[in-house]
Amino acid sequence: MKHEMSEAFEMIVNGIFETIEAKRYVDAREMLLEQNEVDIAEILEEVTEELGVEATVIIFRMLPKDVSVEVFSYLPSEDQKAIISGITDKEISYIIEELHFDDKIDVIEELPANLVTKILARASKEERKMINTFLNYPEDTAGSLMTPEYISLRHDMTVGEALAKIRKEGMDSETVYTCYVKDPSRRLLGIVSLRALVINDDDKKISEIMSDDYVYINVYDDQEEVSDAFTKYGFLAMPVVDNEHRLVGIITVDDVLEVIEEETTEDIERMAGVLADDGDMEYLDISVFGHCKSRLPWLLLLTVSLMITGVIIARFETVLEQVVVLTCYLPLLMGTGGNTGTQAATLIIRGLSLGDIELKDALRVFWKEFRISLILGFILSVFNFAKIMIIDRESVAIAVTVCLSILIVIMFAKLIGGLLPMLAKRLGIDPALMASPMISSLTDMVACLTYLAMASMILGIAI
Amino acid sequence: MKHEMSEAFEMIVNGIFETIEAKRYVDAREMLLEQNEVDIAEILEEVTEELGVEATVIIFRMLPKDVSVEVFSYLPSEDQKAIISGITDKEISYIIEELHFDDKIDVIEELPANLVTKILARASKEERKMINTFLNYPEDTAGSLMTPEYISLRHDMTVGEALAKIRKEGMDSETVYTCYVKDPSRRLLGIVSLRALVINDDDKKISEIMSDDYVYINVYDDQEEVSDAFTKYGFLAMPVVDNEHRLVGIITVDDVLEVIEEETTEDIERMAGVLADDGDMEYLDISVFGHCKSRLPWLLLLTVSLMITGVIIARFETVLEQVVVLTCYLPLLMGTGGNTGTQAATLIIRGLSLGDIELKDALRVFWKEFRISLILGFILSVFNFAKIMIIDRESVAIAVTVCLSILIVIMFAKLIGGLLPMLAKRLGIDPALMASPMISSLTDMVACLTYLAMASMILGIAI
Repeated sequence: MKHEMSEAFEMIVNGIFETIEAKRYVDAREMLLEQNEVDIAEILEEVTEELGVEATVIIFRMLPKDVSVEVFSYLPSEDQKAIISGITDKEISYIIEELHFDDKIDVIEELPANLVTKILARASKEERKMINTFLNYPEDTAGSLMTPEYISLRHDMTVGEALAKIRKEGMDSETVYTCYVKDPSRRLLGIVSLRALVINDDDKKISEIMSDDYVYINVYDDQEEVSDAFTKYGFLAMPVVDNEHRLVGIITVDDVLEVIEEETTEDIERMAGVLADDGDMEYLDISVFGHCKSRLPWLLLLTVSLMITGVIIARFETVLEQVVVLTCYLPLLMGTGGNTGTQAATLIIRGLSLGDIELKDALRVFWKEFRISLILGFILSVFNFAKIMIIDRESVAIAVTVCLSILIVIMFAKLIGGLLPMLAKRLGIDPALMASPMISSLTDMVACLTYLAMASMILGIAI
Repeated sequence: MKHEMSEAFEMIVNGIFETIEAKRYVDAREMLLEQNEVDIAEILEEVTEELGVEATVIIFRMLPKDVSVEVFSYLPSEDQKAIISGITDKEISYIIEELHFDDKIDVIEELPANLVTKILARASKEERKMINTFLNYPEDTAGSLMTPEYISLRHDMTVGEALAKIRKEGMDSETVYTCYVKDPSRRLLGIVSLRALVINDDDKKISEIMSDDYVYINVYDDQEEVSDAFTKYGFLAMPVVDNEHRLVGIITVDDVLEVIEEETTEDIERMAGVLADDGDMEYLDISVFGHCKSRLPWLLLLTVSLMITGVIIARFETVLEQVVVLTCYLPLLMGTGGNTGTQAATLIIRGLSLGDIELKDALRVFWKEFRISLILGFILSVFNFAKIMIIDRESVAIAVTVCLSILIVIMFAKLIGGLLPMLAKRLGIDPALMASPMISSLTDMVACLTYLAMASMILGIAI
């Protein structure tokens, strides 16, 4: 199947929709089964949205068992819950049993307690213990991302024995492409790729072909560290160990893609003054109240800062009373400060988050932003000077007041925009919080103060 | 090795730095070789920065050949160029020959023409042809990301024959974990995982165990589509075909991680009003002039829009002349508009880019933002009303003017912030361009206009 959100795919989806609306479920099933499981899940998600969750449950129950499990794992948790309450306990058990371990944990975390008890009762003693352990890892840690489904080998096995073990157990592992070598007390010794097993002779010892140049993750590492490690090293899977260096699970790159998406969304939202607790929830799935809750705190804080800006203006009321035309350039001053500051802050925040910029680069950032602000400040001042003199036909004194203020505000905004995120990082605060809203309210204050102070000096108005 | 940017790693790096500064290169080499190749590259990058590129070249030449090739592929292109001009032609040829094909193309693209000619002259005829083909795929397409290093099988082979082929060729492939099945005219028929080969009997036919439920990419697809496909399906590698469905290469997930990073950076920069042509360049590596060039265009555009806001104020000068205190609340109005609009725009832009929100959701977005703006507008109006009456002790007329304006501005800002990015997408413009600077300059204008119009109406001032 060609990947695309294309018209062709839209047409297929529409066709399936029509058959479902006409209640020709068997036809719908046939058409669905020609799609990849990920796409089936996507189509079912739309079915829920457009035709109601009942239609989704009907179609879901008609899917072959093995397909239904995979489709289930790709559905959003709302749909998963709806399906679970619409199918029999036996069907639920089958799905939960067949899910990959990490998906299983995700589903169980969302289920009501009585259902969880039922599921745990049916699980083997060993599995029950493991589910409980995994449920206890804090959210957003490596432990919550990992799966215990990997192939482990002993260092004294031969390649032939290892391959036999993989043939026997392989089907249950999330990945067989890297095998992990443990000593008898479960400590991680090294890794062997399936590729190495396949290209070596059957009687070679694992210890001879095993590599001890592996990178591992601690089970309590933050998920952001995990995604950094994957981005840096480009591995497909990484082993997770506890504090005694015992292998407790592995993390695969497909789960990391989701983490990267989630972390980036949180960063972007923070940069726009939205409390980002719902980084993993979609915009349309968040309630109006939820949206208000995540947007209000910053707005209130910014309102207070804007009130202070108002106080500054009130302090200079005499200046404005005498030269009312100055008010016309106030938005220009405030807007330019906000815009130039935001540019610098955004670049620095992104650089910090990618590791391109480190705290020790503060002086280099300062020096760079200083020169940038001189050039940009000069260009924008000249541009505005010309406009004020030629188009507005104001006095030189006013043009000088405005343009000198622009230069000062741009320099301040670029430096504060460049350095504030770094200061935040130094203090252990998320630099993303120092973006657009924070910077613009700071530059607003400074812009007003600078502008009106310059005006009273240059125009000689006592305040 | 434990992954961390931790103090422990910092200490190791400092130790290596000291030995290099003391010119004890042999010791430095030993210490370096205990690190992973990715880390060696990172350390060398810092060596270049702190001690100059000569030190990097000296150490690089002391590394064992196989390590040096891998380290080379992780170095930034500036360092690669420096190393290439500091080593012999023979050493260059060795490195280029041993690089993975996709890295090879990346390096060759950056090299001066005379060196490229030399390298092509040494390559086999077949490889020369392939290099030329790959160099011709447009940047940012699937073609520029793919590698021809994959295992291809014929559908009439047995599992045993396939494994023998992998044993023979496997070492040269970027991934052997998925094998691609072609017909005699090179058209892609299906895929077989190494796992399937290992767990099946040697005399089974490939056609029996091959899967035709694969997702493929067209060689001219944009790299953003490629990263969307990987995020959606969670594959480790995907096949790339030309318009005749002939298999031309594969893309692996590690190269996609870089694309995701690059595309996200471009989005974030655009949202802050920075022209994002340098999405793959680091902040510190871009010159002051480069930074000015990418920041100036938006600033000039915004200056023009802020001038228009100034004109609006000039139009209402009589209002401000008579009630100067109104000016004190101007920043509040403009700031609140910008902040609330930015919040909505950012959430929508991110949702569009992740595929959570589609164009057909416009009405739902409208309805949601409408209700959110009513709630937030009400809360902020009441908050400000209380402050103006109790703290500022202004008249009810002024408080009503300000708070009614706040409500209107918030409603406008939320709706325009929610819908403008969707309109942009509909028109084929990048929604990210409709973020903070664009939204705030629009809301600035509307805020001024609303506020002053309300004032002249409520306070009964003829304009």
